[in-house]
Amino acid sequence: MKKIQVGIVGGTGYTGVELLRLLANHPSVEVKMITSRTEAGVPVAERFPNLRGHYDLCFSVPEMAQLKTCDVIFFATPHGVAMSMAGELIDAGVKVIDLAADFRIEDLTLWQQWYGIDPADPTLMKHVVYGLPEYYREEIVQAKIIANPGCYPTSILLGLLPLIKAGLVDLETIIADGKSGVSGAGRGAKVAMLGAEMSESFKAYGVNGHRHQPEIKEKLAQQAGEPVGLTFVPHLVPMIRGMESTLYAKLNTPATEGTQAEIQALYEQTYANETFVDVMPAGSLPETRMVKGSNMCRIAIYCPPDSNQVVITSVIDNLVKGASGQAIQNMNILFGLPETAGLTQVALLP
Amino acid sequence: MKKIQVGIVGGTGYTGVELLRLLANHPSVEVKMITSRTEAGVPVAERFPNLRGHYDLCFSVPEMAQLKTCDVIFFATPHGVAMSMAGELIDAGVKVIDLAADFRIEDLTLWQQWYGIDPADPTLMKHVVYGLPEYYREEIVQAKIIANPGCYPTSILLGLLPLIKAGLVDLETIIADGKSGVSGAGRGAKVAMLGAEMSESFKAYGVNGHRHQPEIKEKLAQQAGEPVGLTFVPHLVPMIRGMESTLYAKLNTPATEGTQAEIQALYEQTYANETFVDVMPAGSLPETRMVKGSNMCRIAIYCPPDSNQVVITSVIDNLVKGASGQAIQNMNILFGLPETAGLTQVALLP
Amino acid sequence: MKKIQVGIVGGTGYTGVELLRLLANHPSVEVKMITSRTEAGVPVAERFPNLRGHYDLCFSVPEMAQLKTCDVIFFATPHGVAMSMAGELIDAGVKVIDLAADFRIEDLTLWQQWYGIDPADPTLMKHVVYGLPEYYREEIVQAKIIANPGCYPTSILLGLLPLIKAGLVDLETIIADGKSGVSGAGRGAKVAMLGAEMSESFKAYGVNGHRHQPEIKEKLAQQAGEPVGLTFVPHLVPMIRGMESTLYAKLNTPATEGTQAEIQALYEQTYANETFVDVMPAGSLPETRMVKGSNMCRIAIYCPPDSNQVVITSVIDNLVKGASGQAIQNMNILFGLPETAGLTQVALLP
Amino acid sequence: MKKIQVGIVGGTGYTGVELLRLLANHPSVEVKMITSRTEAGVPVAERFPNLRGHYDLCFSVPEMAQLKTCDVIFFATPHGVAMSMAGELIDAGVKVIDLAADFRIEDLTLWQQWYGIDPADPTLMKHVVYGLPEYYREEIVQAKIIANPGCYPTSILLGLLPLIKAGLVDLETIIADGKSGVSGAGRGAKVAMLGAEMSESFKAYGVNGHRHQPEIKEKLAQQAGEPVGLTFVPHLVPMIRGMESTLYAKLNTPATEGTQAEIQALYEQTYANETFVDVMPAGSLPETRMVKGSNMCRIAIYCPPDSNQVVITSVIDNLVKGASGQAIQNMNILFGLPETAGLTQVALLP
Repeated sequence: MKKIQVGIVGGTGYTGVELLRLLANHPSVEVKMITSRTEAGVPVAERFPNLRGHYDLCFSVPEMAQLKTCDVIFFATPHGVAMSMAGELIDAGVKVIDLAADFRIEDLTLWQQWYGIDPADPTLMKHVVYGLPEYYREEIVQAKIIANPGCYPTSILLGLLPLIKAGLVDLETIIADGKSGVSGAGRGAKVAMLGAEMSESFKAYGVNGHRHQPEIKEKLAQQAGEPVGLTFVPHLVPMIRGMESTLYAKLNTPATEGTQAEIQALYEQTYANETFVDVMPAGSLPETRMVKGSNMCRIAIYCPPDSNQVVITSVIDNLVKGASGQAIQNMNILFGLPETAGLTQVALLP
Repeated sequence: MKKIQVGIVGGTGYTGVELLRLLANHPSVEVKMITSRTEAGVPVAERFPNLRGHYDLCFSVPEMAQLKTCDVIFFATPHGVAMSMAGELIDAGVKVIDLAADFRIEDLTLWQQWYGIDPADPTLMKHVVYGLPEYYREEIVQAKIIANPGCYPTSILLGLLPLIKAGLVDLETIIADGKSGVSGAGRGAKVAMLGAEMSESFKAYGVNGHRHQPEIKEKLAQQAGEPVGLTFVPHLVPMIRGMESTLYAKLNTPATEGTQAEIQALYEQTYANETFVDVMPAGSLPETRMVKGSNMCRIAIYCPPDSNQVVITSVIDNLVKGASGQAIQNMNILFGLPETAGLTQVALLP
Repeated sequence: MKKIQVGIVGGTGYTGVELLRLLANHPSVEVKMITSRTEAGVPVAERFPNLRGHYDLCFSVPEMAQLKTCDVIFFATPHGVAMSMAGELIDAGVKVIDLAADFRIEDLTLWQQWYGIDPADPTLMKHVVYGLPEYYREEIVQAKIIANPGCYPTSILLGLLPLIKAGLVDLETIIADGKSGVSGAGRGAKVAMLGAEMSESFKAYGVNGHRHQPEIKEKLAQQAGEPVGLTFVPHLVPMIRGMESTLYAKLNTPATEGTQAEIQALYEQTYANETFVDVMPAGSLPETRMVKGSNMCRIAIYCPPDSNQVVITSVIDNLVKGASGQAIQNMNILFGLPETAGLTQVALLP
Repeated sequence: MKKIQVGIVGGTGYTGVELLRLLANHPSVEVKMITSRTEAGVPVAERFPNLRGHYDLCFSVPEMAQLKTCDVIFFATPHGVAMSMAGELIDAGVKVIDLAADFRIEDLTLWQQWYGIDPADPTLMKHVVYGLPEYYREEIVQAKIIANPGCYPTSILLGLLPLIKAGLVDLETIIADGKSGVSGAGRGAKVAMLGAEMSESFKAYGVNGHRHQPEIKEKLAQQAGEPVGLTFVPHLVPMIRGMESTLYAKLNTPATEGTQAEIQALYEQTYANETFVDVMPAGSLPETRMVKGSNMCRIAIYCPPDSNQVVITSVIDNLVKGASGQAIQNMNILFGLPETAGLTQVALLP
């Protein structure tokens, strides 16, 4: 069978190299091109030596004619690039998967406020599906453009949605305390992300708001069918990969002795057929290392005694289920492949 | 002037060596003895080579007669030891500062439930003061026994109490999302605390409840004058030292444009004369490295837009303001010394 | 085709879980049993949650009758176990691959000195081959027992042997400065390996000698055809995985301008057909993260100007090419499989 | 007594903030100004929040007239700045301590080759003393300009010089395998120094030579009275602070049973009166955490059996004894203060 021809636009950041890592062993895919204006001509294995022996490709200048020869294009670019090229690509029958935020928020006014640029072409939005397969799988099948979710939104939505869709919790007082490894900040050279600065330290950040907040709120509201109030505080963890979200919601009716077991059962049922969402046994708590390098999201439920709070903890690898792995999962769905193709890596532990 | 004669019982853990580090440069103190049954006869500088050149002391077997020759005894022991020895010491006029939990909770029934041992002598409690100087300074002056607060309680109480004493927030739905470096777990050899296990990973822990929760609740209620509902979830951060608490409280009255500035002013006034509590400027957020090795607590206030939540972030070094530094601060108060004596270290950055 | 039936004895340490991680995606293998006396009955995925969804196996008590139903047994046990069971297994036609040191040193007197136990059955040694495929591949094909090399020996032998076999350097003054991540110390609970102890610190260790030294010396001498003098100093690096060896050797004849290029060519030719040894381009230096989670060894050559020294740097993942990956590579050779089967993982970067 | 008036030129890097940290508690010093063109007007405590509460100073533009009002100026600047200003300062009677490399190498031709800029004024060199107090203390007393040694040179010279001055080892084949924490690379924003890049990895670097090599060679030769051959390979350790050097030298005469004890005694005698050099007991090995945040250098001696090699391991905190602490030690000597003034910090452990 002919392999799916893949192009990657903007391959010098962490989501780009992660796509290459995961696709190297994908049985049905050939990476045909990877573009970077600044690195054109440089072998990708020179920039990312973990790829030595796996890829002979060089970075190339992005050219539309070339990109159109692919079956699917992943955009691992800064915000604003994908939306400027997606229209022409989908007209040529090429599927587009955007790992940036260009298509994540349907409310374009809101999007414009948070990202500070005008949407390139609002009419594209009708071809867009939000690429969280566990909740949008049927729409993804038919999509031309996939808005690959942000990392925080992935971990938080997978953690909160069963509670919210079941109508069990107060929608006005939801709290998401998120924690991310430093690879989430990307590969740009910033003083605050130096090893000598971020190691051996922990902090909240984003005091003026984080762009993932409106994304999460919109999807929560979409699934709830009504507005949702969300307080979201992101934190930086001194580790490379991994994201944990601790989610607090108030039950609508007083908790009883059986509440925790009921919620546990709700989650187990919700995700019974989802390969990449693992509801941990009652009484356990996930650690980010349990998903390092893998496409899994692991979730645990906990109802503290003498309280009406439900606490959900959810972990992902921000670069895999939170970015490149989920993008490949979406590609698999788009092309009718087994959803796990190329995504069977076991987390690296220790 | 004669130096204060200090004894340390149980000096082989992290709070013990931290007491020695801090006291090495205290102008008015002489460390006379440090005890450890298992290490008796071993020079402390052999066990903790950072002390080479600073101490000639050897560990000794704890003997009551010897301990009574000191002016103050620090207990850096497992729970249950201090309460078995404190009575005889205070009868001999020796001050007791317990870094363990023996005297932290006034409700002894509650204490017994969480710690699983019977209080040695309930009558001792009348001599005990909870050693959080910013709120109990006047009582500390007269105390015979200081219950040195836990690390989470220190960071959380300093962060929440101004709000709570001012009656600004709903007392039923307070949430404390705490994060601690691994030194908080002590120096015991446990697989889960191995470098190969805890590095490069982040997790919530204490799913069955954490012993600091009843301590925090009791003190919050004491200061509020009424019961307080608290959801507390502790997390483990892959770093040695440092503790951050992100605190969520719901305002009793709808937030206005001026709310954040009012709360900022409240905190600045509350702590205006406190050397060891630093209210950060509006718009900034503390990082744990800003207090590494120092006795400071740094706090920031943040009111997310479109919400009635107040978010407080509070950082300490869990071994200093969260343990040994605060113990020395209490000693300084007990003996009429300047409260900053021996505690002027600048945080180690980077 | 019937899959190779694999048994693992002693599966609770890091090399055991790493075998499971790698074998989970091996196309020709079924892991039939994994033993642990202390954990018998416990699902492996409960002890190592990264395996949730990949294995249903429980740990079982090791029983010879059961082990004999396998095609190959990996021993991921403390020293001394494999040699007590290997004889009966090979008599039953089962291949044995020992990840411990039981069969690594042919000079049994020397072995006894360093390991402090008597060899169980010296006659077994005639069935043993040292499992460094790049130098012993032909013998491995026919072996009944594979002595899987130590991690330091793997990185050092691959780095030094081209020089030594070519007779280019002084054999009396070879220096190997080795550095290992903490997973090399195993999963035992030791204070010195706590995260709070080993993080943010670097040290030499093994002042009284390291057991890998006689192993390296013996193999160097075997390949050189004469005794080799080796100074080996191991160091501990504050990271989980990875091993780097910096190797210093003195050229027998004065270096000229062309020396570095000649040595570069020698290495490139030596390893031209070796999938798992990568000679880096002249002028580059390997980093351990370039091999994290993969079975690669990457090597660079450097001749400092104005000196007769050759400096070789060599990196591996101590748990993969330094242990479990190499063990699987040996299994592949033993069973006539492609040598890369199950070993195509790309290193996890970042 | 009037305090010594200190100025710091170039205070936004790690050696600048470390000077401020250490001087905050120096009993005889007042920091009068700290300059930075780019940060002029910004409070130092805003840029380095660990200093909040310790300094009210703002960064200022460096102006010669102002600098001349100080007693001593520390240059924590890029290479080339100090030499352009030192002449005018010393003419005005101001002492100069340069933490950069402007005055470290007496052979100015060599200096020009390695640093790529012309020396500003060769005649200044007659006022310069190399600021390694343990070997140049008497000259320091009279110096006008102190060339504060590099971090690698400090750890390597203190480790090697007793052997070399005693004439015990072959001067042609000395090997220094150095390892540094990432703060040594400074506070500049470079991709390779991002936490996501340098964490969890170890590497050799400086394949084309490191500028500290000619500095070390020149001082070794100066003290030996003849040329010294040195192979120096620096490595990067995934930690913030700390430097370890493992030094290999070949004995001139065959080792006997007593050799190690003799060398141990030689080191103990050499450093008997040196507060900041600690010769560890025979059989122990230093760890970098034993000196974290302190001005100590700890050294151990080891003679591997069956070899003529001596192995010396030496640890310092690269920012303290390797930079700012040693600079203050030099200032103390220059001004007749106790050499330990302001330098009594105990290393932060854990």
